[in-house]
Amino acid sequence: MKNYDEAAAEAARDRQDELTKPPGSLGRLEELAIFMAGWQGRAQPRIERAQALVFAGNHGVTAQGVNPYPVEVTAQMVANFENGGAAINQLCRLAGAELRVVALDLDRPTADFTRGMALEVPDLVASIQTGKDAVDPKADVIILGEMGIGNSTVAAALAAATFGGKAADWVGPGTGADEEIMANKLRAVEAGLKRHKGAATAASILGSYGGREQAAICGAVIRARELGIPVILDGFICTAAAGVLMVNDRNALDHCLIGHESAEPGHRRLLAAMGKEPVVTLDMRLGEGSGAAVALLILRAALECHNGMATFAEAGIG
Amino acid sequence: MKNYDEAAAEAARDRQDELTKPPGSLGRLEELAIFMAGWQGRAQPRIERAQALVFAGNHGVTAQGVNPYPVEVTAQMVANFENGGAAINQLCRLAGAELRVVALDLDRPTADFTRGMALEVPDLVASIQTGKDAVDPKADVIILGEMGIGNSTVAAALAAATFGGKAADWVGPGTGADEEIMANKLRAVEAGLKRHKGAATAASILGSYGGREQAAICGAVIRARELGIPVILDGFICTAAAGVLMVNDRNALDHCLIGHESAEPGHRRLLAAMGKEPVVTLDMRLGEGSGAAVALLILRAALECHNGMATFAEAGIG
Repeated sequence: MKNYDEAAAEAARDRQDELTKPPGSLGRLEELAIFMAGWQGRAQPRIERAQALVFAGNHGVTAQGVNPYPVEVTAQMVANFENGGAAINQLCRLAGAELRVVALDLDRPTADFTRGMALEVPDLVASIQTGKDAVDPKADVIILGEMGIGNSTVAAALAAATFGGKAADWVGPGTGADEEIMANKLRAVEAGLKRHKGAATAASILGSYGGREQAAICGAVIRARELGIPVILDGFICTAAAGVLMVNDRNALDHCLIGHESAEPGHRRLLAAMGKEPVVTLDMRLGEGSGAAVALLILRAALECHNGMATFAEAGIG
Repeated sequence: MKNYDEAAAEAARDRQDELTKPPGSLGRLEELAIFMAGWQGRAQPRIERAQALVFAGNHGVTAQGVNPYPVEVTAQMVANFENGGAAINQLCRLAGAELRVVALDLDRPTADFTRGMALEVPDLVASIQTGKDAVDPKADVIILGEMGIGNSTVAAALAAATFGGKAADWVGPGTGADEEIMANKLRAVEAGLKRHKGAATAASILGSYGGREQAAICGAVIRARELGIPVILDGFICTAAAGVLMVNDRNALDHCLIGHESAEPGHRRLLAAMGKEPVVTLDMRLGEGSGAAVALLILRAALECHNGMATFAEAGIG
């Protein structure tokens, strides 16, 4: 496990104060450069190789009428990713990230969490391992995303189990739920929380609610930490998935940025509970890692300034 | 003068609803694509050529002790732009914008606005024309920025003259004013507002307070509108400069986006007065067009999705 390198971060902070600008005037861009320096362990962090991982899964809880789209759309969207037609394809091309899509047993949805455990232990372990194995050890940064019809319901349940609160605090419209679907989502999450109220570790929470893509996200986050690779999480669903790891270790996501604040109302609450601030807020709510890919553009802007600007001494100013 | 093309915007809106995502789920990226469609007059807007214009000027009001940096820094920073060492150079390279820096008579600062008109009419007219002439008629989008020691004091005066309120509503720390410098800024703006209280047109306000770079920004905004080229304004100083045009025509900046919300406190108030929302908020306060260049990345993300994504029909989904 690689930890944050305070010396590298300090050297980056010193460099920022020498660059040709008033100290602090690049705001968040300065913080992002220092964050990257600390996690990459070098005063001048780089992004030569960026990997985007999108995990896809299906969910038995869709039987509760929690999504306007049929479950088949998950596989159709995975095909769209593979054919280059989705938002994440365009954003990865622009941001210079290599996209890898990992579909986890789409023809075998997890069990309905209102009726029992969503994932049995071997399936949970395999999904986490899939996430770990997907990480490119040579990546300089990893962005994480997901696709799965019904998974904003799973995310609401995971958030409630991890950070407390009622189902209504975390359930939102997701891909565009009407009143009836919203009521179904709320009922499903309430039923799940009641059934699995004993779940108190990251593994038991993930097993209770699923799904495979959430478990894979946790695996990728864990593996990136082992390798010292900074991560950009996407919106509500991705953040809720990774957030489960904070049950076991409050610092488990210290190497993770939150790419954007989703329009899904629970995301603001989730970020407050985690003590994180998003890089951008653009009212996006698509998933697929799309908000994280936009944040990668900002991260690149931060590093271009950090590494490319002249110092006052170099420019002969002051 | 080209106006917003409602038909092109409507066609872009229709296209957004056919792309492989829940309607509205790209949030601000959808709005930006539709904005670009309307101003470029095509359903699939493009950014093949992006121009960044940074105007620099010097200000007689620096005699009032309104800035911690000496006036020579303006010319030194212009040299830094020309040598590729500034933040804006790195950001333009990343965002694919061609940078042009226009220094306006740096060895001849405008007059101190606390004692008289900052710019006489011929000088004002010439500065506006310089801004107009700098615009590349073939650009698909223009980002505007500025550099000028003392120009956050000028911006505060322009904002107060344009949108009302007291000097204290608009004066902020700028590049990093201490308590004494803040008091000097406040006193200078108060004195200016008292001296020039009759100024009620864009030209008289610009002439009263200056400076040349602010007048050039207005010229570039006017010329871009004539050509139907969308504009991204930078932070407090750039927005306050262009905002003066709203005195004559409340819709004068309809073709302009605000790239970012500056950390300079007056910018939030200014955006509220103008009815504009920034693209990003990253606590930047550097100027040079740096926030507008970051916003250009987001604009590119919007257009990549808009033009590159498959429709539901193309992907065979639904």
